[in-house]
Amino acid sequence: MLLVTFSTTDGPRRIGVRQDDSVIDVPALAAHAGVDAPGDLLTLVRDGGLGVLSELVDDPTAQQFTLPLADVTLHAPFRPGKIIGVGLNYTEHVAESARTLDTDKELPQRPVLFSKPGTAVVGPGEPIQHNGDLTSQLDWECELAVVIGRTAKRVSTEEALDYVFGYSIVNDISARDQRRSGQWFFSKGQDSYAPFGPAVRTADDLADPHALDVSLRVNGEVKQKSNSRYMLFKIPELIADISSGVTLEPGDVIATGSPAGVGASFTPQQFLVPGDVVECTVESIGTLGNPVIDVSEETS
Amino acid sequence: MLLVTFSTTDGPRRIGVRQDDSVIDVPALAAHAGVDAPGDLLTLVRDGGLGVLSELVDDPTAQQFTLPLADVTLHAPFRPGKIIGVGLNYTEHVAESARTLDTDKELPQRPVLFSKPGTAVVGPGEPIQHNGDLTSQLDWECELAVVIGRTAKRVSTEEALDYVFGYSIVNDISARDQRRSGQWFFSKGQDSYAPFGPAVRTADDLADPHALDVSLRVNGEVKQKSNSRYMLFKIPELIADISSGVTLEPGDVIATGSPAGVGASFTPQQFLVPGDVVECTVESIGTLGNPVIDVSEETS
Repeated sequence: MLLVTFSTTDGPRRIGVRQDDSVIDVPALAAHAGVDAPGDLLTLVRDGGLGVLSELVDDPTAQQFTLPLADVTLHAPFRPGKIIGVGLNYTEHVAESARTLDTDKELPQRPVLFSKPGTAVVGPGEPIQHNGDLTSQLDWECELAVVIGRTAKRVSTEEALDYVFGYSIVNDISARDQRRSGQWFFSKGQDSYAPFGPAVRTADDLADPHALDVSLRVNGEVKQKSNSRYMLFKIPELIADISSGVTLEPGDVIATGSPAGVGASFTPQQFLVPGDVVECTVESIGTLGNPVIDVSEETS
Repeated sequence: MLLVTFSTTDGPRRIGVRQDDSVIDVPALAAHAGVDAPGDLLTLVRDGGLGVLSELVDDPTAQQFTLPLADVTLHAPFRPGKIIGVGLNYTEHVAESARTLDTDKELPQRPVLFSKPGTAVVGPGEPIQHNGDLTSQLDWECELAVVIGRTAKRVSTEEALDYVFGYSIVNDISARDQRRSGQWFFSKGQDSYAPFGPAVRTADDLADPHALDVSLRVNGEVKQKSNSRYMLFKIPELIADISSGVTLEPGDVIATGSPAGVGASFTPQQFLVPGDVVECTVESIGTLGNPVIDVSEETS
């Protein structure tokens, strides 16, 4: 299933199942069927209920509870408990970063981990904030995101995928000029620097998360174009490594790293400015598009 | 007031007010008084109610609802929404870090920010996990912690302290050998690497957060001894800087940085091993003590 969090003009944010050009209104369907189903996506991730949801949606009645995609607003799937980012996880991005961002030329021997706070999350269509008082190097990174479904502590690579609820997209936005003594938290953790969505593909509905085209466009022009098969540390290794020390909880998200083609790597360098539109596409999940807006005036 | 989260053998975790050798059981007192008071500390921080609590506790009846400190278990005050750490925020620690930890010799021009996840939090008395499979450089850092009480976004230094609920202690534990391409998240973010507590002193009850003795002992021997007056970036500057890009929410915590005397700075270097006991003391807040235990066998 392809799950979304959506709202209509007259209702709260709630869970939906995305079909081609429509969304099944899960709470409405569940109410009609007299079934107790999770009303929001985070509750589904944390408390379970995919089986119930699946049965509901497979019933022909479900088609009576669809809304045209054009009539709903999609939101970030939920606010993750924690977002763990993986740096330097595609070979060519390691090379371009070494040229332009002071990182090592050698491939990392262990996953390079950092985090983004929940306050950084925005949904599809919501603006990425460009604050000219803080940055002139606002950059993009389209990444496959892993949504954790079960508490994972010291999990082996063999069993790691059992802990995955599904897959989504994170655009790992950075203000390259806000690294502080090399630390990435403030450069990558600011409000709106984690666009997330537009949907979560459940793990049972995705044959291989390491065979997905990953691409990014700015104002329609392709900047990144790769495939998740080129990750250095694959998802089972990431989950095993992180959970060797940091417990992963349902609703945590791992952003698995960016392929080559970030703005800093171009000659001359290209950075986001107000008015730009960034679109991240991951095969089988969808496209996460966000406009860039100027927020510097708010301070002046 | 000095607020704690405590439990007894027969009750849930709840909010208490620490007196000399006793704790006022706030929910019991509130029930007796027929007053609606927050049952836990995070709810108080998020939803307010300090005035009501203060009146309750000032009433002589309150003394009927005290429990001897020896009869209760203190816990971490709450699980923060996010924990933002500040690196290199005491002059002498900048110098010792440059000698031993590959950081810059120059004083930072902007606060060096990183984060620890909520899963890293443990309370007073709870063990710090030493996993010999991952680290042989487990280190300590006693820090004054700021508990945010109101949503802070682009706050000026002048008004910054209005956003503080109170003050506590964080022991910023690090596995120095788990920095990844310089990033501190995995070295500082592992489970149990954020002992927090044992109490929160409300801001109205602390005249000057920049005049507090800060010290740390390992097995009774003093390793760190300084005063919060020596912070490079003071609390108003930290709140203004962070909130210029990252919204701070009620229940977020800022760990304001460590003074000199971390284990890595000694010759030869000193690191924590199973059996050690670390005690962090901040004047007017208390002492946060944690034993170090071996967890490496769980993996073998």
